[in-house]
Amino acid sequence: MKHKASPNGVSSRAKVLTIDTMNPTVKKVEYAVRGPIVQRAMELEKELSEGMKKPFAEVIKANIGDAHAMGQQPITFFRQVLALCSYPELLNDSTFPEDAKSRARRILQSCGGNSMGSYSASQGIDSVRHDVARYIKRRDDGVPCDPDNIYLTTGASDGIVTMLKLLVCGEGATRTGIMISIPQYPLYSAALAELGAVQINYYLNEQKCWSLDISELQRSLDEARQHCNPRALCIINPGNPTGQVQSRQCIEDVIRFAAKERLFLMADEVYQDNVYAEGCQFHSFKKVLFEMGPEYSNTVELVSFHSTSKCYMGECGFRGGYMEIINLDSEVKAQLTKLVSVRLCPPVPGQALMDLVVNPPQPGEPSHEKFIKERTTTLCALAEKAKLTEQVLNTVQGISCNPVQGAMYSFPCITIPEKAIKEDNGQKPDMFYCMKLLEETGICLVPGSGFGQRDGTYHFRMTILPPKDKLKILLTKVKEFHQKFTQQYS
Amino acid sequence: MKHKASPNGVSSRAKVLTIDTMNPTVKKVEYAVRGPIVQRAMELEKELSEGMKKPFAEVIKANIGDAHAMGQQPITFFRQVLALCSYPELLNDSTFPEDAKSRARRILQSCGGNSMGSYSASQGIDSVRHDVARYIKRRDDGVPCDPDNIYLTTGASDGIVTMLKLLVCGEGATRTGIMISIPQYPLYSAALAELGAVQINYYLNEQKCWSLDISELQRSLDEARQHCNPRALCIINPGNPTGQVQSRQCIEDVIRFAAKERLFLMADEVYQDNVYAEGCQFHSFKKVLFEMGPEYSNTVELVSFHSTSKCYMGECGFRGGYMEIINLDSEVKAQLTKLVSVRLCPPVPGQALMDLVVNPPQPGEPSHEKFIKERTTTLCALAEKAKLTEQVLNTVQGISCNPVQGAMYSFPCITIPEKAIKEDNGQKPDMFYCMKLLEETGICLVPGSGFGQRDGTYHFRMTILPPKDKLKILLTKVKEFHQKFTQQYS
Repeated sequence: MKHKASPNGVSSRAKVLTIDTMNPTVKKVEYAVRGPIVQRAMELEKELSEGMKKPFAEVIKANIGDAHAMGQQPITFFRQVLALCSYPELLNDSTFPEDAKSRARRILQSCGGNSMGSYSASQGIDSVRHDVARYIKRRDDGVPCDPDNIYLTTGASDGIVTMLKLLVCGEGATRTGIMISIPQYPLYSAALAELGAVQINYYLNEQKCWSLDISELQRSLDEARQHCNPRALCIINPGNPTGQVQSRQCIEDVIRFAAKERLFLMADEVYQDNVYAEGCQFHSFKKVLFEMGPEYSNTVELVSFHSTSKCYMGECGFRGGYMEIINLDSEVKAQLTKLVSVRLCPPVPGQALMDLVVNPPQPGEPSHEKFIKERTTTLCALAEKAKLTEQVLNTVQGISCNPVQGAMYSFPCITIPEKAIKEDNGQKPDMFYCMKLLEETGICLVPGSGFGQRDGTYHFRMTILPPKDKLKILLTKVKEFHQKFTQQYS
Repeated sequence: MKHKASPNGVSSRAKVLTIDTMNPTVKKVEYAVRGPIVQRAMELEKELSEGMKKPFAEVIKANIGDAHAMGQQPITFFRQVLALCSYPELLNDSTFPEDAKSRARRILQSCGGNSMGSYSASQGIDSVRHDVARYIKRRDDGVPCDPDNIYLTTGASDGIVTMLKLLVCGEGATRTGIMISIPQYPLYSAALAELGAVQINYYLNEQKCWSLDISELQRSLDEARQHCNPRALCIINPGNPTGQVQSRQCIEDVIRFAAKERLFLMADEVYQDNVYAEGCQFHSFKKVLFEMGPEYSNTVELVSFHSTSKCYMGECGFRGGYMEIINLDSEVKAQLTKLVSVRLCPPVPGQALMDLVVNPPQPGEPSHEKFIKERTTTLCALAEKAKLTEQVLNTVQGISCNPVQGAMYSFPCITIPEKAIKEDNGQKPDMFYCMKLLEETGICLVPGSGFGQRDGTYHFRMTILPPKDKLKILLTKVKEFHQKFTQQYS
């Protein structure tokens, strides 16, 4: 037993768990979306609320895709059904529309004891998985979908980490490598660090609107094969943080590449309804895979992720999501089912919400019109803000912004003067930039280094979620700050 | 690229991910509470619903602590507040009590954009953590509690796995070992298998009502030190699956042991309101620790877990929970906060529910009387069923059942005849027993081997949750089955 004397005379034992004796893989985890800059933003908010004087009146958080926090309104129908499911006495309330009631009844009937308080099956509620399968079939113009291949998840993150967990094995030069895009959503790098897998970077082509080039995939894969065992290829489409929407051709090329190189495909498709740019359209990997014929559709292993958190729903707090697995080996599938059973089940309210997303009010039902109106309003506002963001940022000398074709983010390239880069302040230049922006304007963005970027380039990610008037202020402030910053360090 | 010819002439590639190439630690995971016997129970239910003839009319699931599924009623006040939070338009509905409305308003005010659809802080909603801290202070007769030490979690399981994750490091003889009781709740063994930590078994004393003997802790620890680095000691109190309630003295002894041997303490206290036996009382590890004076309270590292899933709430589906950390190193705490941020936040409806559990209606508020009545009804019914279970099982020759002092389970010792043990059917004897019980009676229990038991002894875990009339039928059927089984194999 180790003791050390403490000032008050009470002997204090050395701690069992210290930074030096904790899990080293956890230490390697980084997650910029909620990193130091966000912590500082929260401090500033607290200081403001305590009356401290700042050069700004409020902190505007454009760091995270948190739609409702930015004023996006929930879909009325969804919330009515959730209220009915939470407190079924409301089924006798005549002010609730009949279609909301019938949805609630159906969900409750699938819950043990007719209560959302019961555990569901670990794979998710049976009827919800059937609804998800029907939704996917509709979305993919009739490509069949087996409910048995649907797993409900605690947000998409949960599914992504679970699938990565299955894939990781080997040591040293045979250690599993996972290909991820750079820039990437840092859940991927965080999960790979924690699992001790090798992160294989492939770079998106910023010059071609963040497109995915097969030659770059090949380069990245060939290099990785020198030192690890690449097993899976992760794609985010529409892109996070880069906002691009992949063409059908590109998806086909990626699938061909995965088949040729024997890579497991992981398609993060949580922004599937967030497509704004003219000429762009969402194509699911599943659909393209099946259109390529049985040589591909019978063999390529694919998992696709979706969530209640994005699109027109923005219901992040409910942690709803699903994944669909295609061509997963049956023994591995049994292991997956066993693995998810340890955590019992995804949150049932999130499952209920997922059910509503895949089975919204239909034409002729009392809530249909309102639902369509609300959905359209939200998606149109996002489209407008996507355009506005791109336009304003591109008026700033030293900022260059690709079109925000989809998702909820812009990821502009920023020119940081040499003098600022060389400033030795213990921070990466884009962190220095964003931290200064925060302190001077109250605007919270995430530095590009948190997502990965080509060496020598700098970016930030900002969401397009703030209400239009606030977004305009934000963009103006960013513009002014950038000009001032450039002057200051030139 | 490997191809093999398939019957239809389409070449099929070998799968990337197979049972032989998947993560080997995942393969080692076992979780009996939802294992093969439960899968068979679900098949039987399906067969029954399809009209297939069986020797029973319904499957009775006593395998899992799923209270609402077994007919336990949710607390009205909790569900009213959840409905109000889900659909705030109901705040204008005069039929909802004012205290429910004020709770809902307070929760919504703590949510971004006043919506449960927003992400919360990763550690959990600030005001909820404050309410949890106040609850703990009340529960522990004034022992101080810092809201900054509270982390809201996705059920207790999430917190347990997260803390274990921090603790695991080293290789070979320095690999982290974690002490768990045998019998144990298999989340622990599953998490340790997945993390590749060493499971160190200490045996509870079945002869002394599943009490915890310090000498056995010492034996287990000393043996483990030969081959790994024991770092933490997990305790479940009240016990799962064993239903004992620890005495204050025993808790003090355990804390002293942990301090002496430098072990991190993990106290699973999710059944803290489930105490039935006369003379038994729940003592939190935190309170006892602080009563032992600064030599202990300033040094011993402790984490305690609680959940919305058990006690009188039984709200498993919402996946609500919290953990309180005591004396955690500040750098490790920062790492913990970072780690939980990767998964963004626990489900917000579960956080709201946790808030209601720790801050229920107070005397003088309109919902107080009803709340007390509902809570008392549920807890009294559980106490009655705990007694009934023990009494009936102890009338069966060859079954010996300790008092169910707390929690929701009995874990009786069953005598399995030699002939049945020797029957070579590829199953452990208690699995053979439980499977036969299921096929013949429709009753689904979990074999003791899923929780661990002393070699040569056999048990099953059954919940006391079925409604009293159904529980009586269940107990009678178990009795008859055991007699028949004993006869058959004697």
